[in-house]
Amino acid sequence: VSEDDFLQSFLSALPPAPREVVVPPGDDCAAIRLDAEHLLLVGVDQVIADRHYAGSGPAATPARLAGRKLLARNLSDVAAMGGVPLYVLTACGLSARRDTAWLREFLQGVVDLANTYGVHLIGGDVAVAPHDDVASLTVVGRVRADRVCLRSGAEAGDVLLSTGTFGCSLSTGHHLTFEPRCREGAWLVDTGCAKAMIDVSDGLLLDAWRMCSASELNLRLDPAAVPRRTPDTTWEQAAADGEDYELLCAVGPGNVAELLHSWPFADVPLTQLGDFVAGVDLPVVMDRDGRDLRAQGSDGYDHFRK
Amino acid sequence: VSEDDFLQSFLSALPPAPREVVVPPGDDCAAIRLDAEHLLLVGVDQVIADRHYAGSGPAATPARLAGRKLLARNLSDVAAMGGVPLYVLTACGLSARRDTAWLREFLQGVVDLANTYGVHLIGGDVAVAPHDDVASLTVVGRVRADRVCLRSGAEAGDVLLSTGTFGCSLSTGHHLTFEPRCREGAWLVDTGCAKAMIDVSDGLLLDAWRMCSASELNLRLDPAAVPRRTPDTTWEQAAADGEDYELLCAVGPGNVAELLHSWPFADVPLTQLGDFVAGVDLPVVMDRDGRDLRAQGSDGYDHFRK
Repeated sequence: VSEDDFLQSFLSALPPAPREVVVPPGDDCAAIRLDAEHLLLVGVDQVIADRHYAGSGPAATPARLAGRKLLARNLSDVAAMGGVPLYVLTACGLSARRDTAWLREFLQGVVDLANTYGVHLIGGDVAVAPHDDVASLTVVGRVRADRVCLRSGAEAGDVLLSTGTFGCSLSTGHHLTFEPRCREGAWLVDTGCAKAMIDVSDGLLLDAWRMCSASELNLRLDPAAVPRRTPDTTWEQAAADGEDYELLCAVGPGNVAELLHSWPFADVPLTQLGDFVAGVDLPVVMDRDGRDLRAQGSDGYDHFRK
Repeated sequence: VSEDDFLQSFLSALPPAPREVVVPPGDDCAAIRLDAEHLLLVGVDQVIADRHYAGSGPAATPARLAGRKLLARNLSDVAAMGGVPLYVLTACGLSARRDTAWLREFLQGVVDLANTYGVHLIGGDVAVAPHDDVASLTVVGRVRADRVCLRSGAEAGDVLLSTGTFGCSLSTGHHLTFEPRCREGAWLVDTGCAKAMIDVSDGLLLDAWRMCSASELNLRLDPAAVPRRTPDTTWEQAAADGEDYELLCAVGPGNVAELLHSWPFADVPLTQLGDFVAGVDLPVVMDRDGRDLRAQGSDGYDHFRK
């Protein structure tokens, strides 16, 4: 069972959310009406040793980088809604084999990145777990109600843009050191041109497919256009490795040239990857010849699969 | 290292929270200024198999009750602030030995109780953990700014009241089936008489001591006055078992008789346990003869100690 299928089947059985929950579960964050102009964003994500980082051995991830990753993942979710992160809370289960110095380092990794992004740690819980090091983090943010960007906002004819590069996130250490695309996401929504966004955590094709699914469209994607993280990165790696934490953004075709021209972040490429098309057999991410790209290779990384 | 000491030393090194964070970390929930009249409450708590419930064996806790407990613990935190819980998000790490049916049952335990309390699940994350079943839950609630009840609000001369009974929570199953004291907490703050509150998760004496610590007071407590959960419950069990999830509430001495008289919940006792006193050697929970009650016996249950 994939995480998507599991959550989808569970969440669809819930009573409907009240009207002030503008974005119900299923997007990068939930959004709640805060006042006439703003939504409150709330999201949760977790890191587990030996699932999201190396827990032990000679290549063990330093505690501080593991903590950094926990927060960075969540900031990426807020960025994908076009929001500004404000507060975080974290719950940590420390394995019995660790000492508290490890947890202190882990939390310092959260706090150091929080300081960089102007985010405040406002709550937490710590407990000891029998075997595993686990930690979850909840992020609370804010977004203008007329700017919030869902996965579902793409329309046929829209162009898919991406930030950054793809593939080999684990082997290059990118998954531990990446900068969440908060400023890029905010810039894109501030132009008024961003119609849909998602962050790529589980692989370019899988997350692009999720955008297609939410928007009820197909996507024609040009594999040759996808920027790769290193010269050696293969198409398969760029397509499915995941943990890129880049943004995918749908914009109207008439806005593309101006956006590419005015993009102010010289250190982060903004790239045109493809375009959304209507279709019957939905959703499919296909190449220019209509071949299903996901059917041809790996399908991304699902942290819920064993 | 106790959880209190660890968090205290870590949190005290953080940059100061911005002014809109009315209640910084250290209370049952954090509180953020929402509008002129209301605060947003946010809290996080977790349950870990074989720490908070029996993970396996003939006495294994049913998944649904483990999930119920996860939410109930968090609702108790909101109750202790005098607030109304509204939304929850959960992050679950499912051990590799479990199947997804177990997780579905666990989440159903969350949702069933959420429905009872009018609370909505608005987000979640699921992943597989190598060994442990872990889950954290974030609760978002609301409270009137002029009613919010902190641990720190008690004054010398105030009387300590408690809801419910104490001790033997594990052996009686109370820790899995308790009703969080949301209606009782809301009633207490609505009277305008509640000056400080905390919920008893780690033991009556330890949580009373936390209230003393936050309020910079001592507490004279009458052990004979403490209502016990069963006829066989000893004083030591009532004092230190924990997981009672009852409320401790400080009120002015002039309000006690009226509160006890008008208390509308016939199924939940409201009991006068003692009174707060100023002192030099702070904070101490003592008996009527001034003996330190915590020094005489067990000190409560700390989920962070190994």
